[in-house]
Amino acid sequence: MASSGVDLLLVSVGSDLPYLTGYQAMPLERLTMLIVPSEGEATLVIPRLEAPRVHEHPDVFSLRPWNETDDPIAIVASLVGRPRVAAVGDTMWARFLVDLLGHWSSDQTQYVRGTVVMNELRMRKDAAEIAALQAAGAAADRVATQLQGGEIELVGRSEAAVSADISARLLAEGHDVVNFAIVAAGANAASPHHHASEQVIADGDLVLCDFGGTMAGYCSDITRCVSLGEPQPPVAEAYAVLYAAQAAGVAAGVIGAECQDVDRAARRVITDAGFGEYFIHRTGHGIGMEAHEDPYMVEGNSLPIAAGHAFSVEPGIYVPGAWGMRLEDIVVATDGGPLPMNSVNHDLVVLG
Amino acid sequence: MASSGVDLLLVSVGSDLPYLTGYQAMPLERLTMLIVPSEGEATLVIPRLEAPRVHEHPDVFSLRPWNETDDPIAIVASLVGRPRVAAVGDTMWARFLVDLLGHWSSDQTQYVRGTVVMNELRMRKDAAEIAALQAAGAAADRVATQLQGGEIELVGRSEAAVSADISARLLAEGHDVVNFAIVAAGANAASPHHHASEQVIADGDLVLCDFGGTMAGYCSDITRCVSLGEPQPPVAEAYAVLYAAQAAGVAAGVIGAECQDVDRAARRVITDAGFGEYFIHRTGHGIGMEAHEDPYMVEGNSLPIAAGHAFSVEPGIYVPGAWGMRLEDIVVATDGGPLPMNSVNHDLVVLG
Repeated sequence: MASSGVDLLLVSVGSDLPYLTGYQAMPLERLTMLIVPSEGEATLVIPRLEAPRVHEHPDVFSLRPWNETDDPIAIVASLVGRPRVAAVGDTMWARFLVDLLGHWSSDQTQYVRGTVVMNELRMRKDAAEIAALQAAGAAADRVATQLQGGEIELVGRSEAAVSADISARLLAEGHDVVNFAIVAAGANAASPHHHASEQVIADGDLVLCDFGGTMAGYCSDITRCVSLGEPQPPVAEAYAVLYAAQAAGVAAGVIGAECQDVDRAARRVITDAGFGEYFIHRTGHGIGMEAHEDPYMVEGNSLPIAAGHAFSVEPGIYVPGAWGMRLEDIVVATDGGPLPMNSVNHDLVVLG
Repeated sequence: MASSGVDLLLVSVGSDLPYLTGYQAMPLERLTMLIVPSEGEATLVIPRLEAPRVHEHPDVFSLRPWNETDDPIAIVASLVGRPRVAAVGDTMWARFLVDLLGHWSSDQTQYVRGTVVMNELRMRKDAAEIAALQAAGAAADRVATQLQGGEIELVGRSEAAVSADISARLLAEGHDVVNFAIVAAGANAASPHHHASEQVIADGDLVLCDFGGTMAGYCSDITRCVSLGEPQPPVAEAYAVLYAAQAAGVAAGVIGAECQDVDRAARRVITDAGFGEYFIHRTGHGIGMEAHEDPYMVEGNSLPIAAGHAFSVEPGIYVPGAWGMRLEDIVVATDGGPLPMNSVNHDLVVLG
């Protein structure tokens, strides 16, 4: 905080709070806010009826419970003097910042994103965090293996039914929560964030499955495609390009490279093969306690990759009205080079 | 907006957006924001790769897709002039408001909560919304009936196992999502928001179950307690008080009364019986597309109850170290009086 000129850090719902305190607040209208001044003691302002759920750490923070008829933002403002620079947690609800602006106007207090403080802590995963990402990745890999092995019935089922099946398997393999299970068949896959629909999967479809969840606090995220029957030559050709692009993106994820170099490495392969216009999103996102967090692998992000940075490498090719494909692993940058959290077959597996 | 002096409404993730547009944005770092000026056309700023998911309503709003390397907040600020008063959706992520403050400082733009505009629309449920709340309530009632009928095994199972069982039953009865399934046995129930734990439920326990989910966009929320064996006299006595308090709260939920009157009516019964210090939370919360929304049934809220207001009435008595009990229905204020969405047995049902 001192090095980034931040006087006060305010953290509410989301993953910054459990990262710092071990306590996860429910996303509710009742304010939970950790107040961390650059000097002095931290305070957790918390609804009185949630307080019993907190495992206290008096050496780290004290509790300030508030009652149902209190104004918790007024309590926050009264606990610390007006800050010169306040860093606000990314996923705090805006209603609390709106109320805070009534106490500390933005012409006297400069508000900055909480990531200014938190990124240095959270982006570099330590050994325990990498182990958690590996465990979550291995669990996702087991579901992908079931998909590629033909254990998950596809033909004749709706995308939604397959999505529910994959979700159940993620839980069975150890995830605590499923964050998403995209199943997109045929032309539906041309929309990268297509949700599983009632469309029935048919012979001949190319089926994109992108799924992940949270396991012991850390996230998995993987994408594999399977072809129901031999793919048409243009699809097979595009997949070979995608395979090479994803491998190039992973290989570029070395310490000292810039985040945008990962995007550029993957994109170059796709562009050189003539599919550039069909790769319509960034190459990746950071991952950890959140499914998406810093650093982002996107053009314009010149942040140097550092040891412990964890991120997805997920180029895609999307041809509107026809098909879509994406290939995704989670990778951690290490002194030994990019370390994938996913190792399941990267080929376009043919089923049926 | 005109009557409340708001120039600009900004809505992002949460339920205001689907309420207004039919489109639900994923809670992601990529900004989705509906811009509604008090005069002129509304615009939905959206990541280009999410745009295919929007069912467009060109008569209501236009789409402004942004690309991965754009600054979406700069786009928002460029689309409309600096507002005098901007209403910001409650559950927007604070990071976007922090970025917006860089364009429109709070000394020149007054920020107010989006509820200033949205509450008038959202608090008064129309006939279709009341029907949706009834359907969700009936589904929750069916699960409560299973609980009271002894179909949900309790003794010898962990709270967590029972919670998972109740969750599965909520889905089987038609809910799309389970929002919570609190199961708290014995002394655990003295913490109103106790999560289901690994504690095994035993003969003699008083078991509090508070569960709900979302069904076709609208929420259920119900609490019932069961006693495993005849309750001890003090527990039975307290439950009789709780029963009367909850009924008094429901009866107070008439059009024209103040929200705090519901709280006062329930609290008076409990206080008069000598249990006042053990009722440590407000009596209720509004409910609709969100599990908790305005209006809140809490001391200090003098908002008059209006036709279509939907809210919980859920007094509780919590004796630390011993036991806890709560009784909850959802109620809609109508011209014909308070209309409960839950009608399952309100008694302390004895099982085993």
